[in-house]
Amino acid sequence: MILSDILKKIDISLNSNLRVSGLNTLLDASENEISFLENKKYIKDLSKTKAGAVLVKKEFEKNVPENTIAIVCEEPYLTLARLSKFFAPKVIETQGNDCIIGENTNIMSNVYLGKDSKIGKNCTIMSGSFIGDNVSIGDNTTIYSNVSVYRDCTIGSDCIIHAGTVIGSDGFGFAHTKTGKYIKIYQNGNVTVGNDVEIGANCSIDRAAFNSTIIGNGVRIDNLVHIAHNCVLKDGCILTGQVGLSGSTTLNEFVIMGGQSATAGHLEIAPFTTIAARGGVTKSITEPKKQWAGFPLFEHRQWLKLQSRIAKLLK
Amino acid sequence: MILSDILKKIDISLNSNLRVSGLNTLLDASENEISFLENKKYIKDLSKTKAGAVLVKKEFEKNVPENTIAIVCEEPYLTLARLSKFFAPKVIETQGNDCIIGENTNIMSNVYLGKDSKIGKNCTIMSGSFIGDNVSIGDNTTIYSNVSVYRDCTIGSDCIIHAGTVIGSDGFGFAHTKTGKYIKIYQNGNVTVGNDVEIGANCSIDRAAFNSTIIGNGVRIDNLVHIAHNCVLKDGCILTGQVGLSGSTTLNEFVIMGGQSATAGHLEIAPFTTIAARGGVTKSITEPKKQWAGFPLFEHRQWLKLQSRIAKLLK
Amino acid sequence: MILSDILKKIDISLNSNLRVSGLNTLLDASENEISFLENKKYIKDLSKTKAGAVLVKKEFEKNVPENTIAIVCEEPYLTLARLSKFFAPKVIETQGNDCIIGENTNIMSNVYLGKDSKIGKNCTIMSGSFIGDNVSIGDNTTIYSNVSVYRDCTIGSDCIIHAGTVIGSDGFGFAHTKTGKYIKIYQNGNVTVGNDVEIGANCSIDRAAFNSTIIGNGVRIDNLVHIAHNCVLKDGCILTGQVGLSGSTTLNEFVIMGGQSATAGHLEIAPFTTIAARGGVTKSITEPKKQWAGFPLFEHRQWLKLQSRIAKLLK
Repeated sequence: MILSDILKKIDISLNSNLRVSGLNTLLDASENEISFLENKKYIKDLSKTKAGAVLVKKEFEKNVPENTIAIVCEEPYLTLARLSKFFAPKVIETQGNDCIIGENTNIMSNVYLGKDSKIGKNCTIMSGSFIGDNVSIGDNTTIYSNVSVYRDCTIGSDCIIHAGTVIGSDGFGFAHTKTGKYIKIYQNGNVTVGNDVEIGANCSIDRAAFNSTIIGNGVRIDNLVHIAHNCVLKDGCILTGQVGLSGSTTLNEFVIMGGQSATAGHLEIAPFTTIAARGGVTKSITEPKKQWAGFPLFEHRQWLKLQSRIAKLLK
Repeated sequence: MILSDILKKIDISLNSNLRVSGLNTLLDASENEISFLENKKYIKDLSKTKAGAVLVKKEFEKNVPENTIAIVCEEPYLTLARLSKFFAPKVIETQGNDCIIGENTNIMSNVYLGKDSKIGKNCTIMSGSFIGDNVSIGDNTTIYSNVSVYRDCTIGSDCIIHAGTVIGSDGFGFAHTKTGKYIKIYQNGNVTVGNDVEIGANCSIDRAAFNSTIIGNGVRIDNLVHIAHNCVLKDGCILTGQVGLSGSTTLNEFVIMGGQSATAGHLEIAPFTTIAARGGVTKSITEPKKQWAGFPLFEHRQWLKLQSRIAKLLK
Repeated sequence: MILSDILKKIDISLNSNLRVSGLNTLLDASENEISFLENKKYIKDLSKTKAGAVLVKKEFEKNVPENTIAIVCEEPYLTLARLSKFFAPKVIETQGNDCIIGENTNIMSNVYLGKDSKIGKNCTIMSGSFIGDNVSIGDNTTIYSNVSVYRDCTIGSDCIIHAGTVIGSDGFGFAHTKTGKYIKIYQNGNVTVGNDVEIGANCSIDRAAFNSTIIGNGVRIDNLVHIAHNCVLKDGCILTGQVGLSGSTTLNEFVIMGGQSATAGHLEIAPFTTIAARGGVTKSITEPKKQWAGFPLFEHRQWLKLQSRIAKLLK
């Protein structure tokens, strides 16, 4: 798409024949992508961006790097939302190649296989599962019944996905208008699941707004776990039942999260961290190999001590 | 049905040829409906009821209004439960008209379409979804794979329902007998979802016991959210991941609930209220535009202050 | 299978022609089963075991009873995990008898029925549901759309299972290698659901590692509830929305758990106990008929008192 043409659709007039292929964050955008600056705290990222164009408020126009086109608008995030629709792929493809199915793979009855998808060898895809368009699944992977894998997602080899789990549903993203309407930010990224991953029943793992929500190799996820858009789980992480991760949170290698524990968004947890059941993480954890508990979060030993102090209030 | 006849089925003898069409609460019941008084605190409602008949204990017979028939019984709520079965529609209709499907609507393979249902224009209903009997869906609505919409529910236009979500499952209602058996209160209401609503993956929204569970226009619901029977979400509410609402709770316009937050039942939350992640609401919130946190719930600023005081106990 | 043969597959050489049929705990194992001792605290169980063979560390070889074969290894739990694969039944049976369907039972379109399964009279199995191999369902049971019942599970009569629920998914079990790889413990048990049970939408009830996860008669389970492997819910238990039970926990008769409450694993809760919403149970509760709340857990009245004391810290 040509930048002028797409901006015209949302009533912004700007003369540029730059070819644009999508939206992205300041740091990840390429010269053919549009990015945005809404929140002042990312202004350092603006100076580093390689984006072809950036949506900015008038006051930050001067901070846009030389090779990047400034698209000045009052509400960059809202404008981004309006643009996102034009980069969204079709909900369902009607054209394309039939799914390629590897040797010895068992596709059971009532499975939907999307266009241009590919399933490896020795897999089982059980009845009622939905494999969207342009999905890739490795070898020896078992997908139980009534699983939904949205378009463009990838799942590695030697994985087990239990029944009812949803991979690639839209992240929870929208911009607010001044009149209280919510404008959807189309979630044009995907989910990538590594090798040797087991995911329990009735989980939901949202696709990224841009780029990928990433589930690393060897990860183990229990039932009813919620993973929001753009999270990254590095290799060997363990999430037990009913854990919830907010958007853009990174769990480094071998992080363990106990039942019903949760994190806020846009934070990072150091390798080999353990969060006890019900723990609520609201800030990044930088020191590896520690154990944490509670909400607010304390080091586990401190939390136990604190609970005994609190209990003394009864006396 | 004739009142005498239906009461005979549960061994209550009362001579009345009143035609009755269903059950309802004291305040909502019409002259052709049966209501009940179990809990003394609703006795004011009894005096205002327009119900054709009311199940009451002997001691409250005198409080039943003149035009309402008193059905005296020892356990009104249990009796209601026993009666509810006779008003329950069929689990599946075998007769009726085929679903009406609007122009340019894509019904994918392996979708079940119930009798007397109606789907508007430009919709997509993906594989594995179940659209029950007498369901109505507006225009431009996308229903992803493996969604279940139970009978009698309605969904508006411009909605997106993500995979695995269940709309219209039975509310959690039953009466206890003295011997420890639970008698189901058939959930004869429905769910109505407004226009421009997005609901995430693997949510459950229960149908009402009587009348409707209501999701207003413009509402945004994230993944794995539980909404119990007879809740009302007014326009523009936002529920993030893993929120749980107990029965008969009303969220007024633009209430925002953070991840894993929850409410008790039978309460009301004022417009523009924000409940932080993990907040637990146990009483109605009457003042609008405030921010709350914690369980027990405090104003957000107070909660932060309280946490810092609590942390000092460690010293 | 012959013990020598199966051990050879994991490079343990031991000369024995004992016929073995599966794995089990020390106390439940029969003379044709293999058990294990990893954790010293179960050493009393070792002395009572009737297992045909037991995986033990060198230091406990002397504690193995006379009629039981000691299989000495460095990491018994990890060795158990490696063995478990060989006792796992097929993911899908391709041979066997067609499902037996009782009189007046309605199997709707797009239902998968496994081999050697059996469904009673007057049942309804709605579209999109998956009934695995060797499943047994009683009479008058209704299974809503998109439910998954994994192989070998049993469901009683007069039950209602709401849409999207998963019964019999694998428990969350694996052993760690020294290099950080997780070895799956194949979950070779099942789930048994009693009579007159209602289970809400999008729940997950995991199958047992050995033996059965048991849901007793008359149990009521709300939506989005997670029940881990080897839990036992005795008759009349009530679990409200989003409750989570960790593995091997027993709820005795008529235990009630409020919304989002949870338990740790390997504990037991006395009959007629009530856990308030959000309560977190980390130890067994031995005295019946008490009410508890909070996390950490207190008697409900004490918890209320404690909260009022805590609130005073604000002054």
